Amino acid sequence: MTNANQSHEDRSIRTVVPSCQFASDNTAGICPEAWDAMEAANQDGPTSPYGDDAWTSKAITMIREMFEVDCEVFFTFNGTAANSLALASLCQSYHSVIAHKIAHVETDECGGPEFFSNGTKLLLVDGDKGCVDCEEVQRIVRRRTDVHFPKPKVLSITQSTEMGTVYDDAALDRVQETVQRLGLMLHMDGARFCNAIAALNMPPKEMTWKRGVDVLCLGGTKLGMAVSDCVVFFDRELATEFKYRCKQAGQLASKMRFLSAPWVGVLQSGGWLQHAQHANAMAKRLAEGLGKLPGVSIVSPPEANAVFVDFGVGLADELRRRGWQFYDFISIGNSRLMCSWATTENEVDAFIGDVAQLTKSRA
Amino acid sequence: MTNANQSHEDRSIRTVVPSCQFASDNTAGICPEAWDAMEAANQDGPTSPYGDDAWTSKAITMIREMFEVDCEVFFTFNGTAANSLALASLCQSYHSVIAHKIAHVETDECGGPEFFSNGTKLLLVDGDKGCVDCEEVQRIVRRRTDVHFPKPKVLSITQSTEMGTVYDDAALDRVQETVQRLGLMLHMDGARFCNAIAALNMPPKEMTWKRGVDVLCLGGTKLGMAVSDCVVFFDRELATEFKYRCKQAGQLASKMRFLSAPWVGVLQSGGWLQHAQHANAMAKRLAEGLGKLPGVSIVSPPEANAVFVDFGVGLADELRRRGWQFYDFISIGNSRLMCSWATTENEVDAFIGDVAQLTKSRA
Amino acid sequence: MTNANQSHEDRSIRTVVPSCQFASDNTAGICPEAWDAMEAANQDGPTSPYGDDAWTSKAITMIREMFEVDCEVFFTFNGTAANSLALASLCQSYHSVIAHKIAHVETDECGGPEFFSNGTKLLLVDGDKGCVDCEEVQRIVRRRTDVHFPKPKVLSITQSTEMGTVYDDAALDRVQETVQRLGLMLHMDGARFCNAIAALNMPPKEMTWKRGVDVLCLGGTKLGMAVSDCVVFFDRELATEFKYRCKQAGQLASKMRFLSAPWVGVLQSGGWLQHAQHANAMAKRLAEGLGKLPGVSIVSPPEANAVFVDFGVGLADELRRRGWQFYDFISIGNSRLMCSWATTENEVDAFIGDVAQLTKSRA
Amino acid sequence: MTNANQSHEDRSIRTVVPSCQFASDNTAGICPEAWDAMEAANQDGPTSPYGDDAWTSKAITMIREMFEVDCEVFFTFNGTAANSLALASLCQSYHSVIAHKIAHVETDECGGPEFFSNGTKLLLVDGDKGCVDCEEVQRIVRRRTDVHFPKPKVLSITQSTEMGTVYDDAALDRVQETVQRLGLMLHMDGARFCNAIAALNMPPKEMTWKRGVDVLCLGGTKLGMAVSDCVVFFDRELATEFKYRCKQAGQLASKMRFLSAPWVGVLQSGGWLQHAQHANAMAKRLAEGLGKLPGVSIVSPPEANAVFVDFGVGLADELRRRGWQFYDFISIGNSRLMCSWATTENEVDAFIGDVAQLTKSRA
Repeated sequence: MTNANQSHEDRSIRTVVPSCQFASDNTAGICPEAWDAMEAANQDGPTSPYGDDAWTSKAITMIREMFEVDCEVFFTFNGTAANSLALASLCQSYHSVIAHKIAHVETDECGGPEFFSNGTKLLLVDGDKGCVDCEEVQRIVRRRTDVHFPKPKVLSITQSTEMGTVYDDAALDRVQETVQRLGLMLHMDGARFCNAIAALNMPPKEMTWKRGVDVLCLGGTKLGMAVSDCVVFFDRELATEFKYRCKQAGQLASKMRFLSAPWVGVLQSGGWLQHAQHANAMAKRLAEGLGKLPGVSIVSPPEANAVFVDFGVGLADELRRRGWQFYDFISIGNSRLMCSWATTENEVDAFIGDVAQLTKSRA
Repeated sequence: MTNANQSHEDRSIRTVVPSCQFASDNTAGICPEAWDAMEAANQDGPTSPYGDDAWTSKAITMIREMFEVDCEVFFTFNGTAANSLALASLCQSYHSVIAHKIAHVETDECGGPEFFSNGTKLLLVDGDKGCVDCEEVQRIVRRRTDVHFPKPKVLSITQSTEMGTVYDDAALDRVQETVQRLGLMLHMDGARFCNAIAALNMPPKEMTWKRGVDVLCLGGTKLGMAVSDCVVFFDRELATEFKYRCKQAGQLASKMRFLSAPWVGVLQSGGWLQHAQHANAMAKRLAEGLGKLPGVSIVSPPEANAVFVDFGVGLADELRRRGWQFYDFISIGNSRLMCSWATTENEVDAFIGDVAQLTKSRA
Repeated sequence: MTNANQSHEDRSIRTVVPSCQFASDNTAGICPEAWDAMEAANQDGPTSPYGDDAWTSKAITMIREMFEVDCEVFFTFNGTAANSLALASLCQSYHSVIAHKIAHVETDECGGPEFFSNGTKLLLVDGDKGCVDCEEVQRIVRRRTDVHFPKPKVLSITQSTEMGTVYDDAALDRVQETVQRLGLMLHMDGARFCNAIAALNMPPKEMTWKRGVDVLCLGGTKLGMAVSDCVVFFDRELATEFKYRCKQAGQLASKMRFLSAPWVGVLQSGGWLQHAQHANAMAKRLAEGLGKLPGVSIVSPPEANAVFVDFGVGLADELRRRGWQFYDFISIGNSRLMCSWATTENEVDAFIGDVAQLTKSRA
Repeated sequence: MTNANQSHEDRSIRTVVPSCQFASDNTAGICPEAWDAMEAANQDGPTSPYGDDAWTSKAITMIREMFEVDCEVFFTFNGTAANSLALASLCQSYHSVIAHKIAHVETDECGGPEFFSNGTKLLLVDGDKGCVDCEEVQRIVRRRTDVHFPKPKVLSITQSTEMGTVYDDAALDRVQETVQRLGLMLHMDGARFCNAIAALNMPPKEMTWKRGVDVLCLGGTKLGMAVSDCVVFFDRELATEFKYRCKQAGQLASKMRFLSAPWVGVLQSGGWLQHAQHANAMAKRLAEGLGKLPGVSIVSPPEANAVFVDFGVGLADELRRRGWQFYDFISIGNSRLMCSWATTENEVDAFIGDVAQLTKSRA
């Protein structure tokens, strides 16, 4: 992809760096372990559809082993559907879900939770570093007890959060204590759950059912798959009839093996953890490199695979003119840089190099 | 499942024949052209998500070329979602959709159309060989004009039909004339559209927008893809805001290229037509072979890739005991044998051979 | 509409007969007991809203006394809402409700049940005299057990039926036995429940919770009120949070006393039964009178307050030209004559007289 | 609740004052003009149902005359349904409605708008005195233009507002200019519309269609009726099929005349305006009386029929112990006193007297 004629350093950098590298972890392709498993699944020839196949059985078994519990597992095509269906299974239309004001269910699913549940309302709370403030949760739950306002039913938290942070041991304790006190169900949006595991080096069970999580949406797409997220019910009663719900909502894959085999691939190989560790490490490298540069500040130390950076006036635009792509999240801290299994050290260093060059020239 | 009386020969046949071969065209894996395109797409590295990528652009362009018109194209994960979203975009909750009583939207989507449209009612008509009887359509549309019953808005037809037949030139004319007379929109469930094209050797435009089809759900999964169906709006006005609808309903893939690249693969290579022709040919071979056997009758000559067979009492069970899998559709004609791109002549012949052996032993 | 040739007699008849007398029992006004109670309620001055008032308490107590059980009672504005909300509280969107093909929930609520439940499908059965055929119920429930079709959850019956008949002791036994065997919930559409009680002279408890009815929609509007129907849960667990459901769905009256006071009025006075008996008697008188006329046949002996008549060719139109109004229900038996608390013997006799005159002139 | 120190006088006052007088304008009964019209309607005898009657025709005609335009008018049972159905007719599920954070559609309809529209999201803005801040409206509309967030479609304002204030000439201009600039539809929640007309002495047309209002929900219940609110479409195209929507949603009254006759009653007599003027005058009298007392402050001068009062610590509780009832609205200003057509000067003065006595004893 490079050619011999390139002289200028920064041009050569940009040519090796895909423009949308840091936009999201969903810009990456399919990771090798997932790909290989799909390939193997494809060589099986005709296979029973709708999940009645060996790959799906195996994936479910492995996810149960991952969580060390006899949970119920369902595969959906993406995270919006996983979250929306999970919440709809916990709620009636006249209930409400409490979530952080920057939660993906609120800001990036186009009203999916409201649609799938036929009107369930999201009630928003704030909280440091993307984690819900449990006192605010209590206030909003206790604020109204009359029938003229939707009845609070579920607390939804995101692990790792939309800010690239994690609920640590103490935060998980507070959340668990809060939902128990208030009689709420607990939903965990784990689109980047593996990054949280990698960050905290915590057994998955300690982050979920031992902490009162009723249902986890376990993200596969951002981890390195094409189109697969899971809904994991730790309270098995809640899963009764969930397959009907998936089917009706257009989320029951006929060729299910292509959603489940990738899970076998990443779980069997340990790739799920290695990729998450790598993405987190790349975010840390980015933050360390950028944090040293004048006029650039890191919004908070990255704990998972996202870095939020305040580039100051103009710098983000200059970086984009050089071909870099990333999103701005004004409400959080100017620019988000997201790393994935596919992010390379070279790309990180090239980005830091470009920022360094630009900040120097502005000095 | 085997017994001592089995000759070597028929046991060996069964070992090469996957048990679920004839259950459905969704038991097959991913066809080579689709696979290769996915592989190429995966090698692109980071790519803009949600359809803002080169593969998706190209797939849309090629589908427009296929239909020789500037249609709007959206990719969904499966056919239930494609049909349900398409119908929801044509209907309000107090409308009704007229469909054949054996239509997939009625019998196999678990109320998906009703769910996505928040209550739209399906009104059922009968009709020979899985094709709607246009006189019955008129009767049901004109039967009620008061506000106490849902207002008819859409006629939904399936091409090729759930019975493995097709609406031919004359039938399409009748349908077009009917919807125009009655002021209905026309939806075509094309989960097996390519099989219909292969059967009738008709340019796609002649089967769709030139026949008054407003929106076509163009099936990729049954054609040989992992998880991709299209919604094609010939009336572009109807597509306004459809992307919002897909997003909210959990049907906007972030890694869209893995849904669109397979279309590039099958369209560029001509595989879409060859596979459909092959599946149809296998169905014909099955019907011809089985039709000659005593006590076995073909419900109607197969026009696409399904064969409906009346095996008489007991034979279907015996075949299943030998490991063959297929569904019974009492309402249509006992047993359905479905062929796909992956069905081989050997498998067809092995099946015919088993039936021949069993019918002979019963004589 | 009159002409010079009309004799004095038939003109005078029409002047005393309101034209829409027999169209429906919802063409009548408010019965005296309901009116008087509303008037008394209005004189209370300011009163706590949303059901927290003395009239509502009293009405609930009296309905509990009527059924001799500690049921939960909710007031809605009309029967469509009562039925739809009751069914929605029993069903998820992927469930189905089995009902008679002429049930009001199917034919005259414009998809209300599907709307309130976000997609629940109605599965239709036939049955003599408007009563569901329990064998057909079993067949339709057992026909499908896969997730691709909505899961049967509720049997809905109408008492008295849309045909003016009633489920008698034996029929209620069959229904109860059927729902128990099949694991269904039992919903009773009692828009004309009081007419059934009057017809069978049965204690209300024997027609409901002792027969396995989980929820009854108890009609007030057709009985003689302005805008009040009840939802009565005999299984009190099912009523948990139902008030939220009513509120969200626009069915929680702020000035609730005007919905509940009429119930106090008709229950305290015994008017509920007298009016129902009267309406039934008027239907019987109609049937007896008409049944004697040549060329007129009664579809089945009326058991409640409706009479279905086959007037033969042309007669119904002639009657309408004379100003009489009634509906045709082709699927049941040509013309429906509905009696209410307000129907008078004079009106019934006048109608019979007109039919007699017309049939004589045609002879 | 009484104590030995109470003089005869203040006890006697309380006996003439219904305890819930100031809780809401829905605690009042039916005003005389509405009652008389219902009575007249009831004397008509059998009448065509579902709005095909003379009272409904006349009411519609009179509402058209009120607004001096050929609008489309529908009667619903209450305001929650009117608002929710109106918004649902303007929105798809993936749209959003912008409203004030204290708007009734947000705070007191238990998610009705989200339910009826199958998921439409409410986006909240702030603004002085319960009126939306148009700059904030623009910010929230322009903040997101991607498909991952619901698309803004409607601005909903309340006239008179939940704070007892009104959008005056200048405010209505700003709103109109805003919706035109941003391409939004304009919905007016007029549960207390007549109070706004009384406050501003403005022809109804100047407050509605001449100001860009597409649909008005015109409140009858709080004005003095039992159960009737209207949906008035000034853009008649929007009303196409609205009657189906009402029917399906359980909001089509069979005995419609009892919803429409009260409108004839209040419009023909001029009572609609007199009652609104009276309620506004009572609120003003309350505010003037209370405003003079030490330790009591009026949150803002009342413009319609509500007064928001800061009673300071403890006083509100003491008043409630004396039997007065009113709601606290922390987010607005401690206590809300609501006046209606039925509020009397005596009651107002008695309340002021009690507050005076209590504040004096605390001094």
